[in-house]
Amino acid sequence: MANAFFSDLLTTISERGRTLLRRAGASDTRQDADGMIALCGALLSGAGEASGTAMAREVLDLYQELDATERRAFFEALVRDFGPDREKLAQAVEKWRSQPSDEDASGLHFASEPRRQELIRRLNRAPGGTGDLVAMRADLLGMMNGHTDLTALDRDVVHLLSSWFNRGFLVLRRIDWSTPANILEKIIRYEAVHEISDWDDLRRRIDPVDRRCYAFFHPAMVDEPLIFVEVALTETIPGAIAPLLAVDRPLVASERARTAVFYSISNTQRGLGGISFGSFLIKQVVEELRRELPKLDTFVTLSPVPGFMPWLKQDKDLPLSDEDREMLKHLDEPKWFENAETTAQLRSVVEPLAAYYFLKARTSKGRLIDSVARFHLGNGARLERINWLGDLSPKGLRESAGIMVNYLYRLDDIEKNHEAYYNQGEIAASSAVKKLLKSEGRRLLDMRLS
Amino acid sequence: MANAFFSDLLTTISERGRTLLRRAGASDTRQDADGMIALCGALLSGAGEASGTAMAREVLDLYQELDATERRAFFEALVRDFGPDREKLAQAVEKWRSQPSDEDASGLHFASEPRRQELIRRLNRAPGGTGDLVAMRADLLGMMNGHTDLTALDRDVVHLLSSWFNRGFLVLRRIDWSTPANILEKIIRYEAVHEISDWDDLRRRIDPVDRRCYAFFHPAMVDEPLIFVEVALTETIPGAIAPLLAVDRPLVASERARTAVFYSISNTQRGLGGISFGSFLIKQVVEELRRELPKLDTFVTLSPVPGFMPWLKQDKDLPLSDEDREMLKHLDEPKWFENAETTAQLRSVVEPLAAYYFLKARTSKGRLIDSVARFHLGNGARLERINWLGDLSPKGLRESAGIMVNYLYRLDDIEKNHEAYYNQGEIAASSAVKKLLKSEGRRLLDMRLS
Amino acid sequence: MANAFFSDLLTTISERGRTLLRRAGASDTRQDADGMIALCGALLSGAGEASGTAMAREVLDLYQELDATERRAFFEALVRDFGPDREKLAQAVEKWRSQPSDEDASGLHFASEPRRQELIRRLNRAPGGTGDLVAMRADLLGMMNGHTDLTALDRDVVHLLSSWFNRGFLVLRRIDWSTPANILEKIIRYEAVHEISDWDDLRRRIDPVDRRCYAFFHPAMVDEPLIFVEVALTETIPGAIAPLLAVDRPLVASERARTAVFYSISNTQRGLGGISFGSFLIKQVVEELRRELPKLDTFVTLSPVPGFMPWLKQDKDLPLSDEDREMLKHLDEPKWFENAETTAQLRSVVEPLAAYYFLKARTSKGRLIDSVARFHLGNGARLERINWLGDLSPKGLRESAGIMVNYLYRLDDIEKNHEAYYNQGEIAASSAVKKLLKSEGRRLLDMRLS
Amino acid sequence: MANAFFSDLLTTISERGRTLLRRAGASDTRQDADGMIALCGALLSGAGEASGTAMAREVLDLYQELDATERRAFFEALVRDFGPDREKLAQAVEKWRSQPSDEDASGLHFASEPRRQELIRRLNRAPGGTGDLVAMRADLLGMMNGHTDLTALDRDVVHLLSSWFNRGFLVLRRIDWSTPANILEKIIRYEAVHEISDWDDLRRRIDPVDRRCYAFFHPAMVDEPLIFVEVALTETIPGAIAPLLAVDRPLVASERARTAVFYSISNTQRGLGGISFGSFLIKQVVEELRRELPKLDTFVTLSPVPGFMPWLKQDKDLPLSDEDREMLKHLDEPKWFENAETTAQLRSVVEPLAAYYFLKARTSKGRLIDSVARFHLGNGARLERINWLGDLSPKGLRESAGIMVNYLYRLDDIEKNHEAYYNQGEIAASSAVKKLLKSEGRRLLDMRLS
Repeated sequence: MANAFFSDLLTTISERGRTLLRRAGASDTRQDADGMIALCGALLSGAGEASGTAMAREVLDLYQELDATERRAFFEALVRDFGPDREKLAQAVEKWRSQPSDEDASGLHFASEPRRQELIRRLNRAPGGTGDLVAMRADLLGMMNGHTDLTALDRDVVHLLSSWFNRGFLVLRRIDWSTPANILEKIIRYEAVHEISDWDDLRRRIDPVDRRCYAFFHPAMVDEPLIFVEVALTETIPGAIAPLLAVDRPLVASERARTAVFYSISNTQRGLGGISFGSFLIKQVVEELRRELPKLDTFVTLSPVPGFMPWLKQDKDLPLSDEDREMLKHLDEPKWFENAETTAQLRSVVEPLAAYYFLKARTSKGRLIDSVARFHLGNGARLERINWLGDLSPKGLRESAGIMVNYLYRLDDIEKNHEAYYNQGEIAASSAVKKLLKSEGRRLLDMRLS
Repeated sequence: MANAFFSDLLTTISERGRTLLRRAGASDTRQDADGMIALCGALLSGAGEASGTAMAREVLDLYQELDATERRAFFEALVRDFGPDREKLAQAVEKWRSQPSDEDASGLHFASEPRRQELIRRLNRAPGGTGDLVAMRADLLGMMNGHTDLTALDRDVVHLLSSWFNRGFLVLRRIDWSTPANILEKIIRYEAVHEISDWDDLRRRIDPVDRRCYAFFHPAMVDEPLIFVEVALTETIPGAIAPLLAVDRPLVASERARTAVFYSISNTQRGLGGISFGSFLIKQVVEELRRELPKLDTFVTLSPVPGFMPWLKQDKDLPLSDEDREMLKHLDEPKWFENAETTAQLRSVVEPLAAYYFLKARTSKGRLIDSVARFHLGNGARLERINWLGDLSPKGLRESAGIMVNYLYRLDDIEKNHEAYYNQGEIAASSAVKKLLKSEGRRLLDMRLS
Repeated sequence: MANAFFSDLLTTISERGRTLLRRAGASDTRQDADGMIALCGALLSGAGEASGTAMAREVLDLYQELDATERRAFFEALVRDFGPDREKLAQAVEKWRSQPSDEDASGLHFASEPRRQELIRRLNRAPGGTGDLVAMRADLLGMMNGHTDLTALDRDVVHLLSSWFNRGFLVLRRIDWSTPANILEKIIRYEAVHEISDWDDLRRRIDPVDRRCYAFFHPAMVDEPLIFVEVALTETIPGAIAPLLAVDRPLVASERARTAVFYSISNTQRGLGGISFGSFLIKQVVEELRRELPKLDTFVTLSPVPGFMPWLKQDKDLPLSDEDREMLKHLDEPKWFENAETTAQLRSVVEPLAAYYFLKARTSKGRLIDSVARFHLGNGARLERINWLGDLSPKGLRESAGIMVNYLYRLDDIEKNHEAYYNQGEIAASSAVKKLLKSEGRRLLDMRLS
Repeated sequence: MANAFFSDLLTTISERGRTLLRRAGASDTRQDADGMIALCGALLSGAGEASGTAMAREVLDLYQELDATERRAFFEALVRDFGPDREKLAQAVEKWRSQPSDEDASGLHFASEPRRQELIRRLNRAPGGTGDLVAMRADLLGMMNGHTDLTALDRDVVHLLSSWFNRGFLVLRRIDWSTPANILEKIIRYEAVHEISDWDDLRRRIDPVDRRCYAFFHPAMVDEPLIFVEVALTETIPGAIAPLLAVDRPLVASERARTAVFYSISNTQRGLGGISFGSFLIKQVVEELRRELPKLDTFVTLSPVPGFMPWLKQDKDLPLSDEDREMLKHLDEPKWFENAETTAQLRSVVEPLAAYYFLKARTSKGRLIDSVARFHLGNGARLERINWLGDLSPKGLRESAGIMVNYLYRLDDIEKNHEAYYNQGEIAASSAVKKLLKSEGRRLLDMRLS
């Protein structure tokens, strides 16, 4: 029985957004990047706010009309023509140099702010502006690829988006079968880990009593989930994905569920790349689930190891005997896992290697190789289990050699693990995982394990 | 028949906010500003987001416990200890000086950002954080009064709040008799122009068919109207406030209303002082009203002139004869307006003076003297009429010599007026107002009117 | 995180209702009861539904215009002219008599339905129709007073309203400080037990952490609470009302509350008189509270005894000595409770009498005398405690001799108590109450207590 | 900006309903119809409401467990054992016969009410009860087929459902792409006229700017659309369905749309069979559309003629020459419409026959043969156009000989047409349709056309 007054607040935004979506493309006036830049200048120079909102809307609408070349030209102009006020900046620098107080540093900070930051803030005033800016950032990312000439612009955009998508402004919503279709459609489209094939498949992920899905939304982009997580409620920690997603699997009654399995987390907005919500999402979902189902005592992921196979292939110095190295070639055979003998032999090589991959192998910069591992271990989770034959899908075999792992989120240890990871580079891992490295039966060469 | 999914989004925030409100004060641990500062350091140093939200909440809760002295100490520590990273800044300055490119200016900008900005962003992550930060700013403003040692902190806080309270994130809501009582209570409390005495008085302002009230809300502070405007629908432009607010006034049927009178605009959040929403509010309300009531063709204020009497008293150089100057002294008599003769004589002096006040008088810096006039004329409105005996309340007499004025918002002219005001300092005024300066019967001394 | 699609469903109705409210009175055409009756005939004869809704609306609007005499004439016409179809009924009766099967009884039932039932169903199709019919019933009740000529009409109206206000269609809502003012206004107006003096008083009843208020609503009358209950959360069972309502009382923290006290239940719609919701309300509120606050273990009322003083005055056969009878006269003195000696003496007489009043005294038809007692004991509650000096307000003294009682709702016993009450006329009472009848110190004459 | 308080009202019901849905099937106790009947007796005899809601829920849950035979036994018991109170009825009959006043007829009416009516009202008190009763009626209808022993029960159920699903309680909602998936799923499932093949197909029906869909909902069954209509906005009146549903059809911009085409109306609840909402739905949707799109001036259906082919085959007395009769046999050939010559010849026979079918042919009871025609013409629409080759789908050929018709809803004529239809059996038709009967080229034999 919630307070309902506020519940209407966002409807306006939502409707507004949708209307705009449809209007887009209706504009007749064709204009190039130059015209837009002139308009941006006017928008920025307006001392007051007289017609600023409409002008901002116009700039954003014009942007829609630009082709890729023009968009790049527009971005370049933002870099070139909307930097800081040189003169004011020079003065501030001198002032600071003559007497470098914090006070003057503050002056320096505000004097060096590129004028495009204020421009972007003013564009955001337009109805639907936030969503348009996020989409613009996606374009920008696409164009930056390898080039650094747009880096300064991107830095400013990210700076503002980070501030606006502050966790304090995000709202967690459960996604289920009574969620509007336009939202669900995006869940289907954006699922990045285990593809959702159609609406029936979607329903199996969100509707059964032992499934949950949660997403973060931003009040200014209410039609767009920003990130979402799919959860399975189970009795014990699962080791393979296929049974979880099977069409005819048995349901787990709520009173028997003890484990919540986060088996898929997907970001949806390319334009928010580099702004991380995942950690907040997992923690809040853990809280939601504990409130709803007090019997849950284990919160764990079932995760791919997407960097494992590339590493196997690229690393010249795997701590393996030649024989074992030879054995690994089986991984390239289709359906290798159907041969029981090969599979058993592979397991005795691959499992220790996987433990090594997590616990010892590092990039040239000393980082964990696996991006998924970096995310969860950085969040304070613990590497709980390595599951042989966890994912036999083509993608699972190609990227993870069929392995899946569980990262365990134990609320009491998160802080400690997180600190140890960031300060000492320590990996929290279960004894079972650690033992893989040291077990008698292990196949790894000794030399590099000290 | 709006899309309702999104309407629930904010409920969570709202509930959250309310719960926190009640929890506040329940904390047992007593801690001083030093402890808080240590906690702030920890919050800022956390490389990840592991327990950041909880830590932010803790800082904000501890702040509640501090007394005024401790709060000042806390602010001072933020100024002193959370400035920019000196070393990185020095390097950036040198880099820029050696080759002052925009690229390097960007480096300089980010290097000079005081660390308290990031701290404030992290505090904002806490549930209810935004509202707490706005309240903190209110404290800060109270302490700055006359002192400059906290200016740098205030500049950072304002910078972030301006970004977060971007017009694109604000939502307009109509306030009426079916609005939740906790919101209405704040309308009563915050009305700053024509006091609302009780709930019956409030109802007369928002419930009748010829009254409207609108407010801006922010999604992260859904219980708090940020600014609101009260509107009366009338047949013609009114010249006095008392008939508009009379208990037994006749209602104006919707089909006869031609004029929307903005007779009161109030900001509610001291902590958002300096961040302007009023211009956006008026323009959006004009749009709402035109959509709802297409017959409305005049949008006008009925405004006080709060700087008029102070100016009359302080300005030594009023363009008046000694006799007229003497006459003005009647304004200090109680109930002067009950004497018909005095009133008539005063009118012939005061009206031209009022026109002079708006059209000619300026501060030493060349600005309009009247803050209300600066707001509306800066928005692009036109000074339409000066109303003698418009407000005979004690406050109206004391501040405005009983005068009220109408500022006219004509959508087609707003841009033009706004530009002329900012670029040439030109005041848009009706010919009637201008004529007051030049009329034969005028009493102003000629010398200064060239 | 509720499903929000449906939450919009009712808005339409709500808006519709409000608009109509305002339109009422705007109708120009003046028409008498005869014209309405003709229109009712047309509405009823319409074979299809072509313009039925509009016609129904017209009848209801015309009704608004009638004065009391015309309304009575309208009701009389409904009784006289909209009875059953005589001919069909006579046939059905003959059919049934010749062979009295259930089948034919069914025919008889439908043949004997007065045509006004269908008329009322058609009136209900109009937007806002349900509320109008409830208001019409209130008029009808006012006119029936003592007369029986409208009884048949009332019977039909009650029959339909009972069906439409079936418990399955009622929705429980919490009322708190974020409830819309137009609802809260009605709480103030309709509170029938302990008057709410103004908005501040209201707030003290619904806003503090240890207070709750719940109401039933019907989807077709969303602006109107039908019945509401006010609840205080306390540590122990209270014996007096004044401390519960005191302005400066201490709050009870949620974690210390063990008892929920239903201290006021008010019906709001006179037109729904005779249709009982109270029992459902109390039971559902008990369930809500247990869900929200699992530590609550006692659910109890704090109730007046409104029939006690009238009974004392009217009953000639009170089982009292002449001396005690004399003593009772003190109850007519103002402020008698300020005299400690009198008060002590009175207590020794009145408390046993009160126990007698509940446990032994009956009306000539053998019913409990007290209407409040009949409600709660009929619901399955137990008479738990008689509280001397529980309500010293003028009304409390005048009606209840200052006594208040607690009825205890123990979910496990409700069914048993309810059955015993209805089947054997047994009163569930605590041993403390029973002991008052038998205690050594009791003052009641023995003769009638066997 | 609607009043949002009420918007939450229904959420509770909705959630409740959904929870129950899932609980169903979880009950362990197996019970037969006898046990249920005993429980029904207890529910009915309960003088108060102590545990009535729970008991009602139990009966409805037990019903779920019954198989078809047991359900029939349950229904039979309701007919047999829950009729009226014989004794009271006999008295009431005698009273009425001795002096047949309306007063006594009223007594007779209430005395003859079968006790199962009150039982059903009490079952309805259970959470989710209304939906369960509607489902029960669907079972009942299935079993009645041809038998009359359950007729009395059905009559009672229909009587109550008609009262509860009074138009005053129905809420119109637009269905679009932001509608919850659980509702949309039902639109796919229940579409009875032009099948919706999948979610993409659904989206094409509800999402484009030139499409609308509306449904009626009942507050106690918020997850269930009761009836819905699909609308296409077009420039002119269409004559064929395929272009309207084509995947790649061009959109019609809102400003060019003049015509709203109701091309599909589907009831969803078998259990509400015989309770008509369609007329109300069409009229309210016309009002909604006129409000939203004032340029619309034509409201028309595009309808099948499902009784046409059966009539062609069964009627021995078609007013045709033997040659034409022979010609009609082509209609049984697959893809006959691909032969241009046959098609042209057929047209000259079939079109006049279709006009005859609507304007002249009647059932033995004198009714229109076509159920769709009866619905729209009974609503006051006019038969506007007969469209040759309007629907070449297998179903369209099989039932309607490929013909489709337009019924025109002209608000000003609805009442008049409706009255003429019901009172004089007159069919409102355009002159074009009438001319088909009389045209020179017509092929119908003269004899029967007088």
